[in-house]
Amino acid sequence: MEIPIQNELLKEGERLDDLQRNDLRIIQNRNVFCFGMDAVLLSAFSQVREQEKVIDLGTGNGVIPLLLSARTKAGHITGLEIQQQSADMAQRSVLLNHLEDRIEIIRGDIREAEGIFPAASFDVVTSNPPYMTSQHGLLNPESAKAIARHEICCSLEDVCRAAAFLLRSGGRFYMVHRPFRLAEIVRELSRYHLEPKRMRLVYPFADKEPNMVLIESVRGGRPRITVEKPLIIYEEPGKYTEEVRKLYYE
Amino acid sequence: MEIPIQNELLKEGERLDDLQRNDLRIIQNRNVFCFGMDAVLLSAFSQVREQEKVIDLGTGNGVIPLLLSARTKAGHITGLEIQQQSADMAQRSVLLNHLEDRIEIIRGDIREAEGIFPAASFDVVTSNPPYMTSQHGLLNPESAKAIARHEICCSLEDVCRAAAFLLRSGGRFYMVHRPFRLAEIVRELSRYHLEPKRMRLVYPFADKEPNMVLIESVRGGRPRITVEKPLIIYEEPGKYTEEVRKLYYE
Repeated sequence: MEIPIQNELLKEGERLDDLQRNDLRIIQNRNVFCFGMDAVLLSAFSQVREQEKVIDLGTGNGVIPLLLSARTKAGHITGLEIQQQSADMAQRSVLLNHLEDRIEIIRGDIREAEGIFPAASFDVVTSNPPYMTSQHGLLNPESAKAIARHEICCSLEDVCRAAAFLLRSGGRFYMVHRPFRLAEIVRELSRYHLEPKRMRLVYPFADKEPNMVLIESVRGGRPRITVEKPLIIYEEPGKYTEEVRKLYYE
Repeated sequence: MEIPIQNELLKEGERLDDLQRNDLRIIQNRNVFCFGMDAVLLSAFSQVREQEKVIDLGTGNGVIPLLLSARTKAGHITGLEIQQQSADMAQRSVLLNHLEDRIEIIRGDIREAEGIFPAASFDVVTSNPPYMTSQHGLLNPESAKAIARHEICCSLEDVCRAAAFLLRSGGRFYMVHRPFRLAEIVRELSRYHLEPKRMRLVYPFADKEPNMVLIESVRGGRPRITVEKPLIIYEEPGKYTEEVRKLYYE
């Protein structure tokens, strides 16, 4: 369902952050979930052509649609988010940036995507899904942060199934995830005929294990994947590499 | 079948190369297939505990068994090779290095491993299989080099099936391959319940795409993979990184 327009700009506990791109601003709430480098890297890794239709699954406060609206010539971007509070923040950020013609925020469940959208109705799907499988040790599995980080409301398989349903044949699915899930990721993508075609590992430092993986899959693609050069975040503690500085500031 | 002992050390076209480890020497023939860095990196990536039984599938001239005999305390190492000429070279290298008590070379077909060895009879399997699927454009698909490089005598699936059959539950399979096959590799391993547990990408230079991938899988393992720090080959053209220099000379 569409989010009703809110009159007030910021609610209690919220703040307005600068996205450092096209003067975009985003509403965030530290108690819910603030976007991280994951979203910035995913939006930079995603290739969206002019006029393409995009959907971001589990959009949270809408950071990926906002960044894609600035970075690409996407025709239209939909953000799907299950949590009322996050979807509401995302919707107000869209209005704040006067992007209501290009971005639509819909509150809904990834697991019910087949009932919300027609099959094969998007050219591109993006997702920064929960990374953790286990709910073990979670003090409050209903908390907004827990839902964003752990597979409580949707599993890796749910995201892949929805992406495959929503994409046209040849459409692209961009996901950021944790490297320790890589084998499962390839299996779940393959199960839904999403062929991994491009992958980039993100290393905090050049001599450390990677802590993120970016993957592009093509619905119905042929097997052959390009593994790209390493994406290194820090030259030294506190100092971004030139590539990351460009991602943020160019 | 076992290779009969040859009286002559070197046949026509063969040469004797120094393996730069434990005074090991290896018989090679430039017209057949000479070992490359792939074999050196695979033998360094493979973890073999004291007294474990190892088999190398598609052993070629036996470079991996020879290197593992020096690097590890493996109890016994078998090398399986389909090509008579390569198996014969491997066998003579074993004798030359007086390793006949630790290494056995068997001429045979990976696809017939189930008829040659008992199930679950090894702790560790290694393989540096052919990387290329296509036989397209091959002038001579029966040549020794073509068989070593292209999936003529065995496919990726054949290697994974044989590894799964030969390994005890919990046994480890070490493979080196090309990154562009990565998605297929994960699928074929998974099909035979070989769970990828550790992976390292090999980059010729720090800012280039990787050209090799090293993967450790565990038969019946649980999903969770450690992606290790990048392995960079060259600091600058012609100059190995310190890590690679150590692999060769320490």
